[in-house]
Amino acid sequence: MKDDTPNLMRTQRLGLLTQHEAIVLVRADCPVCRSEGVGPHSQVTLTHGDKSVVATLYQVTEDWLPVGTAGITESAWERLGLEDGALIRITQTPPPASLAYVRQRIFEDGLTEAQIRAIVKDIVDERYSDIHLTAFVTACAARPLATREVISLTRAMIDTGDRIDWGVTPVADKHCVGGLPANRTTPIVVSIVAANGLLIPKTSSRAITSPAGTADTMETLTRVDLDQADLRRVIKAEGGCFIWGAAVNFSPADRAIIRIERALSFDSAGSLVASVLSKKIAAGATHVVIDIPVGPTAKVRNSQQARELADLFTTVASTFGLALRIEITDGTQPIGRGIGPALEALDVLAVLKRAPDAPQDLRDKAIRLAGAVLELTGKAAAGEGEALAAETLDSGKAWDKFLAICKAQGGVFEPPVAKFQRPVNATRSGRVSAIDNQRLARVAKLAGAPDDKAAGLDLHVHIGDCVQQGDPLYTLHTESIGELTYVLDYVTTNPDIIELTR
Amino acid sequence: MKDDTPNLMRTQRLGLLTQHEAIVLVRADCPVCRSEGVGPHSQVTLTHGDKSVVATLYQVTEDWLPVGTAGITESAWERLGLEDGALIRITQTPPPASLAYVRQRIFEDGLTEAQIRAIVKDIVDERYSDIHLTAFVTACAARPLATREVISLTRAMIDTGDRIDWGVTPVADKHCVGGLPANRTTPIVVSIVAANGLLIPKTSSRAITSPAGTADTMETLTRVDLDQADLRRVIKAEGGCFIWGAAVNFSPADRAIIRIERALSFDSAGSLVASVLSKKIAAGATHVVIDIPVGPTAKVRNSQQARELADLFTTVASTFGLALRIEITDGTQPIGRGIGPALEALDVLAVLKRAPDAPQDLRDKAIRLAGAVLELTGKAAAGEGEALAAETLDSGKAWDKFLAICKAQGGVFEPPVAKFQRPVNATRSGRVSAIDNQRLARVAKLAGAPDDKAAGLDLHVHIGDCVQQGDPLYTLHTESIGELTYVLDYVTTNPDIIELTR
Repeated sequence: MKDDTPNLMRTQRLGLLTQHEAIVLVRADCPVCRSEGVGPHSQVTLTHGDKSVVATLYQVTEDWLPVGTAGITESAWERLGLEDGALIRITQTPPPASLAYVRQRIFEDGLTEAQIRAIVKDIVDERYSDIHLTAFVTACAARPLATREVISLTRAMIDTGDRIDWGVTPVADKHCVGGLPANRTTPIVVSIVAANGLLIPKTSSRAITSPAGTADTMETLTRVDLDQADLRRVIKAEGGCFIWGAAVNFSPADRAIIRIERALSFDSAGSLVASVLSKKIAAGATHVVIDIPVGPTAKVRNSQQARELADLFTTVASTFGLALRIEITDGTQPIGRGIGPALEALDVLAVLKRAPDAPQDLRDKAIRLAGAVLELTGKAAAGEGEALAAETLDSGKAWDKFLAICKAQGGVFEPPVAKFQRPVNATRSGRVSAIDNQRLARVAKLAGAPDDKAAGLDLHVHIGDCVQQGDPLYTLHTESIGELTYVLDYVTTNPDIIELTR
Repeated sequence: MKDDTPNLMRTQRLGLLTQHEAIVLVRADCPVCRSEGVGPHSQVTLTHGDKSVVATLYQVTEDWLPVGTAGITESAWERLGLEDGALIRITQTPPPASLAYVRQRIFEDGLTEAQIRAIVKDIVDERYSDIHLTAFVTACAARPLATREVISLTRAMIDTGDRIDWGVTPVADKHCVGGLPANRTTPIVVSIVAANGLLIPKTSSRAITSPAGTADTMETLTRVDLDQADLRRVIKAEGGCFIWGAAVNFSPADRAIIRIERALSFDSAGSLVASVLSKKIAAGATHVVIDIPVGPTAKVRNSQQARELADLFTTVASTFGLALRIEITDGTQPIGRGIGPALEALDVLAVLKRAPDAPQDLRDKAIRLAGAVLELTGKAAAGEGEALAAETLDSGKAWDKFLAICKAQGGVFEPPVAKFQRPVNATRSGRVSAIDNQRLARVAKLAGAPDDKAAGLDLHVHIGDCVQQGDPLYTLHTESIGELTYVLDYVTTNPDIIELTR
């Protein structure tokens, strides 16, 4: 297209860490800016050999970057496979053609399968800026995706990533729709199911809007950042795993979408179903149990919403030949005591080790979900799944399986303990009549979870408990005095997170 | 909140041009990252004295940035008023509280005046990232703003910026909803209206999705990047002006919103009305004419849409006591010949100088709109505005006023001429039956407009003209062979932009 000379530049590694975002710095008086018509904040394509990366270009007016040199961030450096001094080509990136479909989605009609596929492909190819991605994500929330669009989105997300075929049936999996703090059933369910000889290649996410995701919790107990080869090895050896889903390339579009949803603290039914099912199907699951907690402060607020979400899951799953069972569960309060990665890990260990003070509600719920998996896969007859799950837990077989999986993943770690602990006490006597999941999650996040693994809170009461004025309701765990002060401010101005009635 | 020591850092000016975005670079092993819990791509607040800026933090692992030093981009450096070595405080920026209202707008109901005001204030205070801004902009498009929300948004956008009271009535203004290439009536209308002794403090924008905005065009003829003091001076001296709206602080939220809409190539009726009227009211206008071109490839597609938009403009304007007149005009084809900043400027000059080959359609439309302004303000009786406008033009008074305004703004320039010109010829004989405004605009943009001032195209035909095979339909103007090749590719694959029927 253009003259070749001016847009070839010598590269310099900047050691600049920008997370996902690729950035290139060039001198403001650099010929490439003129010949390509790019200015500060332009989207450009960096090409080296057969590899290319879309980057944001910024200009430098000072001498620390030589003229004719392109300064490159770490993620772009690695993706391009550069060595110092290597030449790259810089060209202007036109807006992705599929952006027309995003506009159509905002103003007019739903999209065809081909249009959704074009959007997802451009997302996976990293042609979408944060602005483009956010417009798509928001449009799918403000004007909810039709069922056929969710099916198209799911298929496109599967097809643009890797997919495993285990060569056997059933392959089990489970997922919780979330919105409930603590509720860390996954490691227990996986251990019970795998101990019964089933394959359950469960990958987990980090927190999106919550104080901890299963991957955050399990990271305090074992290595979770394993790749697809490790996943295959661990599953072949032990049947189950606790792996962070990011390093395996299932549904890569989902990562980009979730990053935006995290920044906005929301997700929508359609993108949730596509996200969950695309990852399950790509991981080779054939039988999946979905837990939908319902409560006034959970993600799903009432049984009407739960039924609609369950219907969407069921319809989309059946299109892909996936056997699905929905469990609608109590979402009025947290399950377990700990809220935050390490504190939740301690609950999981207590249940698996059958500790006398293990949280009963977490044990009950894990047994219910594991029982559902065992029945759905035919491992237990209808109505007998829970008994088999309880037996697997009580016999120690689940604990043995848990340890075996952790060892296969790289070892068993001790969860960290936070430097500072401070109880939050009841300001009057009464009976616990309600717990606000969302504000309690916010307390745990203000305390530092999930970035500080040991941070969060330990909940001492459940709905129906009677407390005296001065009794501890929960204990804050933080790694710094600063955070402790900060979270105490919030707690003091929100005395009704745990509601007490006389 | 936190210990004071680790988050105070010495600053270093990087000479890094990033347009609007503030960026701070720190070493990855820097204590501030640990104490504040920030990682790459975190939003942080930089504070120096009583000034603060929200910035994106990136981490550096290499020695070119010393430990304990914060590298600062130019825009942040200037906004903080720093000198080299000055100390700044870096703290984590919590997500803006008004983001809850953005989520509410996406999933539930419309917003109250107070909620919209909170969002607009956070936008003006630069607390919104591109992701936050895009979610708001998209939500207001996908679930259109109710009239009362548009009124609230308009009021919030006025109140968060500067506002001029000229102390007289009437103060005129005009605006074209756009979507039509060329159509550069503003400089002519302003010259006619000001020549009749009226105040018309017109500020203009650069192109959002088009090949040129009035500010882009006028920049080839005079200085347009003037501030509010200049605006007052020019208006007091000459009555009219051709000033780029960005340097005057009217409706600053609008700038951020338009930047997002530009990246997405859309705007929505509600945000359009709020954007236009907030700027007019802030500039002190009391009488405003709005031009809505209607055509199958214009921004407004049919008379139904035009009526809805006109109603919204009228309702919102009357809430603010603004006298408004809507002119619904022909939007089936470009007005004038040139498409692109300098080429449109040449059309404007031809009409003002009464050149024999001046485009008649541009002259007619400018007279119609100027006539509407003269009637709305009472300068002409009903039905007599166009005659007065034509007389002002034909007598040379408009041209004299144009030159006087340009001189007051800093001089009269000669528009640049592009290096390369190439005609695009009719591939067969026939009558021009339709012109696709959008694809023709795209041709002009691919040729380099509006960034290359001289780039774009000159249109030689209008609907109804008969052409022979080989006759030039339009001439491409580009600054590089690369762009010429690129745009010819597009033209060749889109031979029906100008439709010919036998």
